[in-house]
Amino acid sequence: MHAIFSDIITIGDELMIGQVLNTNSSFIASELTKIGVTIQRIISIPDREQDIILTLNSCLASSDIIIITGGLGPTSDDITKGTLAAYFGGNLKIHEESYKQLEFFFKTRRAKISERNMKQAELPDNCIVLPNKNGTAPGMLFYQNNKPVFSLPGVPFEMKALIMEEVLPVIRKDFELPFKSNITVLTTGLAESTTADMIGEWENKLPPDITIAYLPAPALLRLRISITGNNNYQIKNKLNDHVSELVKILGKNHVFGFDEDTLQEVAGKKLLTNNLTLSTAESCTGGNIAQLITSIPGSSDYFMGGIIAYSNSAKIEQLGVKASDIELYGAVSKSVVEQMAVGVRKVFNTSFGIATSGIAGPGGGSEEKPVGTTWIALASPNKVTSAKYLFGDNRERNIIRASLTALNLLRIAIDDFAKNSK
Amino acid sequence: MHAIFSDIITIGDELMIGQVLNTNSSFIASELTKIGVTIQRIISIPDREQDIILTLNSCLASSDIIIITGGLGPTSDDITKGTLAAYFGGNLKIHEESYKQLEFFFKTRRAKISERNMKQAELPDNCIVLPNKNGTAPGMLFYQNNKPVFSLPGVPFEMKALIMEEVLPVIRKDFELPFKSNITVLTTGLAESTTADMIGEWENKLPPDITIAYLPAPALLRLRISITGNNNYQIKNKLNDHVSELVKILGKNHVFGFDEDTLQEVAGKKLLTNNLTLSTAESCTGGNIAQLITSIPGSSDYFMGGIIAYSNSAKIEQLGVKASDIELYGAVSKSVVEQMAVGVRKVFNTSFGIATSGIAGPGGGSEEKPVGTTWIALASPNKVTSAKYLFGDNRERNIIRASLTALNLLRIAIDDFAKNSK
Repeated sequence: MHAIFSDIITIGDELMIGQVLNTNSSFIASELTKIGVTIQRIISIPDREQDIILTLNSCLASSDIIIITGGLGPTSDDITKGTLAAYFGGNLKIHEESYKQLEFFFKTRRAKISERNMKQAELPDNCIVLPNKNGTAPGMLFYQNNKPVFSLPGVPFEMKALIMEEVLPVIRKDFELPFKSNITVLTTGLAESTTADMIGEWENKLPPDITIAYLPAPALLRLRISITGNNNYQIKNKLNDHVSELVKILGKNHVFGFDEDTLQEVAGKKLLTNNLTLSTAESCTGGNIAQLITSIPGSSDYFMGGIIAYSNSAKIEQLGVKASDIELYGAVSKSVVEQMAVGVRKVFNTSFGIATSGIAGPGGGSEEKPVGTTWIALASPNKVTSAKYLFGDNRERNIIRASLTALNLLRIAIDDFAKNSK
Repeated sequence: MHAIFSDIITIGDELMIGQVLNTNSSFIASELTKIGVTIQRIISIPDREQDIILTLNSCLASSDIIIITGGLGPTSDDITKGTLAAYFGGNLKIHEESYKQLEFFFKTRRAKISERNMKQAELPDNCIVLPNKNGTAPGMLFYQNNKPVFSLPGVPFEMKALIMEEVLPVIRKDFELPFKSNITVLTTGLAESTTADMIGEWENKLPPDITIAYLPAPALLRLRISITGNNNYQIKNKLNDHVSELVKILGKNHVFGFDEDTLQEVAGKKLLTNNLTLSTAESCTGGNIAQLITSIPGSSDYFMGGIIAYSNSAKIEQLGVKASDIELYGAVSKSVVEQMAVGVRKVFNTSFGIATSGIAGPGGGSEEKPVGTTWIALASPNKVTSAKYLFGDNRERNIIRASLTALNLLRIAIDDFAKNSK
């Protein structure tokens, strides 16, 4: 079995002037790497025929697979489709199924279909059409010397769906790939260097076919453990053994899930399966916790609602916080945040109430309570707990860190409560 | 004056597996574009000698300037320096000034200097050394046929400083550059194809030195208008004239700002300057509107708070919606969303109250009210208005579209109110 090489070509003037980040290429590189394809080059070029042709020539000379994104839209600067049709010796013709799908797409949105849009159903007669459920520009698959050349729209969520549902299956069918497997262990509340120290011994013992990557993000540290081998069953077992050991070292309070799990999803599922409900009282996080929770489909089954108590009077009138305590201890204090959590739990009549109060920044800090100071409280059916955190000086990251920390406290509290009620 | 072309080569295995976003290339592309250099290709390759050589051959054949980042670190996978020294026919030798700077770098950090680190002062004897004040790997400048080839470290803040302080001055000195300018017009509520039809005539009249790019995102369409020329003052005036005309065609209700503006920032500023305040009552957007508003520093000056009324009882008890109206019209209705807006405005005693109620999906839709159906209401000091929208079938985007649409309604309402109060 030899290595299979792929090139990624991203087309778009917006990339050449640095206006947008090339998130498409990192997504594609990541997904192809997972199934054992080696990415050889990632090339970004403008919407210009000559550049597309020269790049295709060069890529077809050295790679087994080529994936192109961008330039399939309905406007005048989108020239990829016509260029590819000509390059591979085909002509643009109305593609019946795509035409019908376009009609349906606009009908369900009760929008009129313009002539410009109908042109999106004109496709090269020498390609396999890859239907795009999420947009108006279908993907295309050409073959040259048995090498697949995929052309996908540049809109990220349309491209992503096409990669997962159309591109990966074709690659798996066309090529004999080594088996790869990986598990990403999701942790929160751990710094990168602390983690490296904690798991140093485990890491040193890893066999050469297993590798680890540290992927940090605000309040999160993802650890991706990868394995490659010729026996799918064996590598999966071996990987699971090493990951179990890793999870034991890191501990349940830090490890909240695997792969694509999110804290809001994990906590939400635990609420649902235990028939528990939640409400939120947010000051410094400004609705971000509620927004994360309600991003999950079906969250209305366990999330009753929340109050964003940005002003002191909202804290007093909506949540029943004592005005005298705000005066005495300040809005960012143990006393106030606990009253907020208890208050919101009562208002919405829920099992749990989460509350946050902090100084997100950049203004509002003091010597005693610098920017980043954050109190988080959790009112449970039988108790109320709270803790103080000192995050950093970046508003955006302070809000994310406070939100995820609160969700993790909730996750742990649900487990505790469910265990004790049994 | 002819166009000056540059290629960007980013080197690093981490890019090829999609582990990190290539933020370096977009920064470099953006800075070079600003001074009038045209980026021709951005190529990412692994840390492998053969790939570096082949890519350099190809880039030197077609571009005037080459900028390389990555692979200059002290570890074994960093091979860029040795490869470039050999490629351009030089040898690695201790560079005295860099050696002294390294000593100083570690001394000020009170760290011991390892042999591995000292190797960073070994530099090709055929390059101009570009001192790196922020790290241990200096940048390098080679010339081949009068074409500058820059090699910079991949650590973003080290690379950025070298671009601004060393690379741009060399390029300005070596080449006669045209002036460039661009303005991005930010719109909401317009589809790409509708916009293309609306501005078709304007677009057809554009002189050849002005180009337009469509950059769509959920609920947003950004239009970037760029100009190139030899007289900085003239091109700016010319660009402004064309942009003014474009804004007139698109209309104030759709154009909400320019360049890096956001709806939440624009609406927030309008509230602040007019001494107005805001509260939110969110059902389907689940806190996302409040989260967007409070992401802006200083938003506590005009945002008093919000209620996330995810359940019917929260709508009734917290916002004063009539239970009989929920029964009669459903929670997703004109009557309910208007009562929510009026209710929250009263609860928080604010100038404006925004409310949303819709079916974000994927569940909860019906024939009469399919997924994506969304009511948005705005209670102003003197009236309450509402409108129904039919978004798509993707939960995440429905939430974004509802939130941005609501913020745009608020923006328009503030202008109306401020005008009428004068």
